[in-house]
Amino acid sequence: MPDGEFAGSPIDVFDGVGSAVPAELADHLRTVRLVDHHVHGTFDKPVDRAGFEASINEGSTDPIPDFMTQFDSPLGLSIRRWCAPVLGLPAHAGADEYWKRRSELSPDELSELMLPLAGVERWVVDTGFQGDLITTPERLTQLSGRPSSSILRLERLAEELLEDGTRPEDFPDAFRAALADAAASPDTVGTKTIAAYRTSFDIDWSRPADAQVVEHARELAGRDTLRLDSPVLIAFGVHEAAAHGLPIQVHVGFGDRDLDLHRTDPMLLLPLLRTITPVPVLLLHCYPFHRKAGYLAQAFDHVNFDVGLGINYLGVRSTGLVAEALETAPFAKQLYSSDAFGPPELHLLGSVLWRRAMGLVLGEWVRAGDCTEADAIRIVDMIGVHNANRVYAL
Amino acid sequence: MPDGEFAGSPIDVFDGVGSAVPAELADHLRTVRLVDHHVHGTFDKPVDRAGFEASINEGSTDPIPDFMTQFDSPLGLSIRRWCAPVLGLPAHAGADEYWKRRSELSPDELSELMLPLAGVERWVVDTGFQGDLITTPERLTQLSGRPSSSILRLERLAEELLEDGTRPEDFPDAFRAALADAAASPDTVGTKTIAAYRTSFDIDWSRPADAQVVEHARELAGRDTLRLDSPVLIAFGVHEAAAHGLPIQVHVGFGDRDLDLHRTDPMLLLPLLRTITPVPVLLLHCYPFHRKAGYLAQAFDHVNFDVGLGINYLGVRSTGLVAEALETAPFAKQLYSSDAFGPPELHLLGSVLWRRAMGLVLGEWVRAGDCTEADAIRIVDMIGVHNANRVYAL
Amino acid sequence: MPDGEFAGSPIDVFDGVGSAVPAELADHLRTVRLVDHHVHGTFDKPVDRAGFEASINEGSTDPIPDFMTQFDSPLGLSIRRWCAPVLGLPAHAGADEYWKRRSELSPDELSELMLPLAGVERWVVDTGFQGDLITTPERLTQLSGRPSSSILRLERLAEELLEDGTRPEDFPDAFRAALADAAASPDTVGTKTIAAYRTSFDIDWSRPADAQVVEHARELAGRDTLRLDSPVLIAFGVHEAAAHGLPIQVHVGFGDRDLDLHRTDPMLLLPLLRTITPVPVLLLHCYPFHRKAGYLAQAFDHVNFDVGLGINYLGVRSTGLVAEALETAPFAKQLYSSDAFGPPELHLLGSVLWRRAMGLVLGEWVRAGDCTEADAIRIVDMIGVHNANRVYAL
Repeated sequence: MPDGEFAGSPIDVFDGVGSAVPAELADHLRTVRLVDHHVHGTFDKPVDRAGFEASINEGSTDPIPDFMTQFDSPLGLSIRRWCAPVLGLPAHAGADEYWKRRSELSPDELSELMLPLAGVERWVVDTGFQGDLITTPERLTQLSGRPSSSILRLERLAEELLEDGTRPEDFPDAFRAALADAAASPDTVGTKTIAAYRTSFDIDWSRPADAQVVEHARELAGRDTLRLDSPVLIAFGVHEAAAHGLPIQVHVGFGDRDLDLHRTDPMLLLPLLRTITPVPVLLLHCYPFHRKAGYLAQAFDHVNFDVGLGINYLGVRSTGLVAEALETAPFAKQLYSSDAFGPPELHLLGSVLWRRAMGLVLGEWVRAGDCTEADAIRIVDMIGVHNANRVYAL
Repeated sequence: MPDGEFAGSPIDVFDGVGSAVPAELADHLRTVRLVDHHVHGTFDKPVDRAGFEASINEGSTDPIPDFMTQFDSPLGLSIRRWCAPVLGLPAHAGADEYWKRRSELSPDELSELMLPLAGVERWVVDTGFQGDLITTPERLTQLSGRPSSSILRLERLAEELLEDGTRPEDFPDAFRAALADAAASPDTVGTKTIAAYRTSFDIDWSRPADAQVVEHARELAGRDTLRLDSPVLIAFGVHEAAAHGLPIQVHVGFGDRDLDLHRTDPMLLLPLLRTITPVPVLLLHCYPFHRKAGYLAQAFDHVNFDVGLGINYLGVRSTGLVAEALETAPFAKQLYSSDAFGPPELHLLGSVLWRRAMGLVLGEWVRAGDCTEADAIRIVDMIGVHNANRVYAL
Repeated sequence: MPDGEFAGSPIDVFDGVGSAVPAELADHLRTVRLVDHHVHGTFDKPVDRAGFEASINEGSTDPIPDFMTQFDSPLGLSIRRWCAPVLGLPAHAGADEYWKRRSELSPDELSELMLPLAGVERWVVDTGFQGDLITTPERLTQLSGRPSSSILRLERLAEELLEDGTRPEDFPDAFRAALADAAASPDTVGTKTIAAYRTSFDIDWSRPADAQVVEHARELAGRDTLRLDSPVLIAFGVHEAAAHGLPIQVHVGFGDRDLDLHRTDPMLLLPLLRTITPVPVLLLHCYPFHRKAGYLAQAFDHVNFDVGLGINYLGVRSTGLVAEALETAPFAKQLYSSDAFGPPELHLLGSVLWRRAMGLVLGEWVRAGDCTEADAIRIVDMIGVHNANRVYAL
């Protein structure tokens, strides 16, 4: 149910397409509170324009080059369209005008303006990446007025244990103890692996023996920089998380160019999915492999997926992505996420674009008689709220 | 031409989208009798609800889990929308209501209700999978009132020969003799390989010498369970079928999780397609590789494809699939199939959804002036009827 | 700005969809002069019908088989729809009628009719393929009234040097000298590699030492037919082109069946893209990998892409392709090309279908309020004109 701020939003997600979405479905999508099951914090400190532009390019690890502005992208158009009014500007304000107005506000002011308008019931926060640049889950809750849960990043956990002096021979048990703590904590509702970035999915996914884990931990601990990239340690972490009954988020596909995108095809996870203790597995993002992810969600009871991140980056084209994500997976196996990191525009847009896309896609189904309006609303609730509640036992 | 039952159907495939499809094209799609060039039998015995739900999930080999119903899927929506009226229920009847009514009818009654409404001219039946659970081609003909032809599964043929005591050293000639019989039979119009399930397509596709085949047959015959999984025997079967002038159906892509989907990318068939005696090759299903399959159908005279199975499983989203299947392949190289197995809902829906999708896609082309209505009707006839007649010499 | 011929075109690219495209955007798309940044010449001599039909099938290297006509394809429909009126026939004239009328005109007459109607500002011509069958850039300019620039094919350059007697030990320097000449020439604006056809992208992309290059040049020079297929020589050519500051076009994906399509996945270029001197890299065609190409264009400042070739071959379905190409890439990183080769129908259609698709896709964005009409026009100009001007310094 919407609180005041959300209900009084300057954003109508069906602006310009009102007649395409049946009224009850539209009203529901305007007001339903979503579980954003994979998100990061907002920027804690002011960014300059170069920093902001880089933060709305996912693929590149370089600054945006001089010959262009990242506003000239589908995401940039969406920011100008949906976020400009939140800053008191007309929709489609130019990039310079947007930047000028945005610069007048502090990071907290921006977050306090934008986060509540996302209409999120609960944030499930991945704290494992550049935590020094972004808000903690606690701060995200303060800024948004909504509760947060946490996701434990498995590779970071292993690195921290070794950085903190855990002896390699003690590493397997220490890792298990940390997972047991996490499983007992009401705040931590799941884990995440970024194998995609560290080893790709094209590795031996069998469960390693402790002796082998110790050996690889020793090798890692002996390095100057503790960047876990051992397939053995990756597989160990994932199997241990499953053994502890913890849901496992898996970064799949779309990400920055440090990963080999084609080696993050979720099909390469088959050896893992076939053998793992069947805790919920959450395939994140998945673009452009979302059709394969949907197939895996049909094929394995414990596999679920989302098309977060892609929704923001595709902007207006996210409607096509959301439609393709509704192909082969049962509706009980898909979730909503923004994967927002940094600018609170992304926390807001993920929600706006998903609501709009679901309305356009399901609205067409209803209008053509392919399902009832009640069916459509139920599908929204499953993907937007209920599946996350079930998977993470929220 | 429609017989009485088909013409008096409670289903109007353009219900809800009538204005989008030009009248003559719509009428043609409502009445044209299709060749379903790849289909299986209907359930022979009653199934319980768990069995039914499992039979409308293609990917999983497990029962549907307790937290969900498979009715909550695109296919489930389509069953409630299109099949409920066939059972005398309102369209979109709920899952429980649908199941209650369905349970009151025997398997034969269900088939006799649904099969004729598919408007199929001829069934081309793959009898090679779980033949004890489903009707024979003869019975399918009795229940539907339409003739059937048969497809010989190459791996099953090899297994049967060895199960029946063929000596390994006699195997190559016995296999050839069986193919010669099949080629001479008016009932058997083609063959099929499920290499996708047994070896993947990532194998050596060169034609093996008999001595090598004998060796592999000997290894297989010595096992307790005769499950053919030798790349040599797979390649032997396919090359022999081609040498006997028999069309070859190839399962591609979408299927249950026993296969490694990414290793059934049809591009991995290139070494075979480049060297095989050019009999018609029929790439079946192909989702999510249908764009690549269409490309292969442009690149090789003897390659054809369909998007069966996917059409049923995508439900309302099959319109997008049918559209993508009309991209690069010449219209003479695509066929219609349902790949239905078990519930006769699938035999019916394959036809309903394909007709509707073709009407929506081609109707838009006609309305925008991209082709004439006569062109659209001709494309329907090629894909729905004529290409199958040509390829199988029906 | 349109000259007389272009303005008096018998083609209205928005025929049949007029109400879907806002007026100013439509007018702009009807008149903007495009840079066709990758194109070949038109047929120099008459072709018979078999030759014409083969020239509108990209994938096959065989004649079109007797049981079909290549007019029965998406491209064939588009030729009948858009090119028939240019020959004075009604739109949708039948294949035989079209062929009869076309046969009455000489190759030059056909080119002089069709090329100007493409509304191209400048042709950037790849002269490296079957140059004896098609017009030179100079002749293309005479026939169209528009200037041409040239692209130097790296593999052909290497073959010519060796064919002309360059000693293997002199080959590296001779190759560099030729590139230096090209870089100094006002006519040559870039280079191209067809690694896709010669080695696939699945090779070692590291920069080879001259000694290694000499060794491979010696091996090649010793053959009867000088067809460069050495990964070392391919990588050498590409790195040298980059070192000379020359833009590099890369054939990606869709092409004839001589290539292994799956081994031309642009993701296999990652090792090259990560290490090469960052000159502009132009991923050409890319279908069905266009989503991955768009991602690479976001991830690397120097990577750009187009969906040429596919636009022609998908015909009416090119609208979906153009839409998918507008997903993750910044608008500054996409270009227009036809990749036309042979029949001038292809030079014309590439332009017609791209204009129409851009109008339909961006028009929907504008109508739904997802961007302004000025934004849409600016996107058209970037992709159709400005990005090519920047990348090639035209």
